[in-house]
Amino acid sequence: MKITLHSPLDMHLHLRDKEMLKVVAPLSSKSFAGAIIMPNLVPPITTIEQVKNYREEIYASTKEDNFIPYMTLFFKDSYDYDFLKEVKGFITAIKLYPAGITTNSEGGVSGLDSKDLAMTLEAMSELGIPLLVHGESNGFVMDREREFVTVYERLATDFPKLKIVMEHITTKDSAELLDRYPNLYATITLHHLLITLDDVVGGLLKPHLFCKPIAKRYEDREALLELALNAHPKVMFGSDSAPHPRSKKESCGCAAGVFTAPIALPALAELFDKYSKLDNLQPFVSDNAQSIYGITPPKKEVVLAKESFKVPSSYGEVVPMFAGEELSWKIEEVR
Amino acid sequence: MKITLHSPLDMHLHLRDKEMLKVVAPLSSKSFAGAIIMPNLVPPITTIEQVKNYREEIYASTKEDNFIPYMTLFFKDSYDYDFLKEVKGFITAIKLYPAGITTNSEGGVSGLDSKDLAMTLEAMSELGIPLLVHGESNGFVMDREREFVTVYERLATDFPKLKIVMEHITTKDSAELLDRYPNLYATITLHHLLITLDDVVGGLLKPHLFCKPIAKRYEDREALLELALNAHPKVMFGSDSAPHPRSKKESCGCAAGVFTAPIALPALAELFDKYSKLDNLQPFVSDNAQSIYGITPPKKEVVLAKESFKVPSSYGEVVPMFAGEELSWKIEEVR
Repeated sequence: MKITLHSPLDMHLHLRDKEMLKVVAPLSSKSFAGAIIMPNLVPPITTIEQVKNYREEIYASTKEDNFIPYMTLFFKDSYDYDFLKEVKGFITAIKLYPAGITTNSEGGVSGLDSKDLAMTLEAMSELGIPLLVHGESNGFVMDREREFVTVYERLATDFPKLKIVMEHITTKDSAELLDRYPNLYATITLHHLLITLDDVVGGLLKPHLFCKPIAKRYEDREALLELALNAHPKVMFGSDSAPHPRSKKESCGCAAGVFTAPIALPALAELFDKYSKLDNLQPFVSDNAQSIYGITPPKKEVVLAKESFKVPSSYGEVVPMFAGEELSWKIEEVR
Repeated sequence: MKITLHSPLDMHLHLRDKEMLKVVAPLSSKSFAGAIIMPNLVPPITTIEQVKNYREEIYASTKEDNFIPYMTLFFKDSYDYDFLKEVKGFITAIKLYPAGITTNSEGGVSGLDSKDLAMTLEAMSELGIPLLVHGESNGFVMDREREFVTVYERLATDFPKLKIVMEHITTKDSAELLDRYPNLYATITLHHLLITLDDVVGGLLKPHLFCKPIAKRYEDREALLELALNAHPKVMFGSDSAPHPRSKKESCGCAAGVFTAPIALPALAELFDKYSKLDNLQPFVSDNAQSIYGITPPKKEVVLAKESFKVPSSYGEVVPMFAGEELSWKIEEVR
């Protein structure tokens, strides 16, 4: 059995920079036609110059592939209309992080009062720049996303023309917002379709499955599966693939992030096949994103075959999800 | 400021065996007068011969100290009255593990139907042998202890003369059982008085704070603190100190357990001092246990002083809680 995906897109990707970028960027550009590139470097991407330089760095490591890095800025409430108008040609979206909530988010937004954000968000609405949000409060780890629901509701209501993407949603509550607010969209990761907190801490502790937002309950995973497997038109695949060297994962203070970029498409094919929903994989991994963002990625055909694929134990120093395990689908050809 | 504890007891302790025992047993025997020794070795302790051998092994490593290892058997529903009567002189309690719920519990009890357990539990009631229970279901990791409440209720009701100790309780629900069932008692660990799930997975992932049962919510920790700080008469200190070599903690599949034995008394003094409850430390770490179990430990005075104590980064290969950090109390003298 085979399927061909047309121009798959990863709508939430961490490529890091320098040596790590050289290892991981080609693993995405090989099988994806494009990806939304997260801006949480150290320091974060906040200027046109940084966007250009980062884009060049990505191009340099992906030049053999037909791949568009859709660049983003790290949200600041000081961005004004003139700046945003100028930067618009270089970016696809702006990513908002509550301060300190995940890797390299120390410079994020502390209060999330609509009034404080109004100047920037109104300019973004007018210019048609989507706002991507890491939607977690600073509360108890299992409640952070649920507590953020009211922030999403306020943002969606106060800025009705702003396209707001709830990134890497992990809860039933977030899923339910999609049909209530026309301007709310969502990305869903591979790992949140597959695991719950039980997989992280229920047996042995699994640092390579430790991520932010943390995996939640079974009913939450069910809600995400329902959206993804049916290719809900407001939902896009975003891997949130987040590489860390093994030394930062298997240590006394392990960094958050699951590395899925190189195995995402085979693993998604296996999942959609399991539920007899392979027909919905194309909209989930590309068509929905094209409609929502209004982008036209380069043509790329990825042929997946239902054949055993042994996932490498690592890519450089980075351990992927399913390291050393067998998947039942593999990438047969990219053309 | 100084306090003197008389014959402190650790009512839930893992000493392991062989080389690990040689490292960790003296760290408990130095400052505790006795401890309930958990039987989940490989294979588990289920015969008189094993109890005797294990006790000898512990004595060999603790002979310089005045220390009683209160031995336990690993619960089997095949233990009958005659066997229990014979074994009674060598053990203090019997520990029940639901199958597969924690380290080396594979041989535990699968069903927890009172009828299946009746022969053994009735004999234990008659012989006055306490039942110690690891109270978790096989459900979602955050619900396992809550789901076990009905099992505790059934056991307490069906065997009213059996002393049942809810080991290492971590939830408000378990705490509330104490005042509703006269034959239910509880141990509480140091780490569950200090941490919540936020400390384990809320920031960086902390494998050295990963334990079973997993640390829960803030309201759960509050309920445990309320019991311990007020030295609720049905509550005892049990460290559940559970050593693993660093290689099994900082790895791609990390074992559950926090190693607290050598730092437990200073850390408890710091905690009780912080809440101005130092007077209640003696009943929490010894008197309550003596009353509940009807035991008389050897005389041992542990003088704690409010002076800075830097916790070692490891004891052999084992990393303790607070490794490399400063505590504000230390053990000044043991006599």
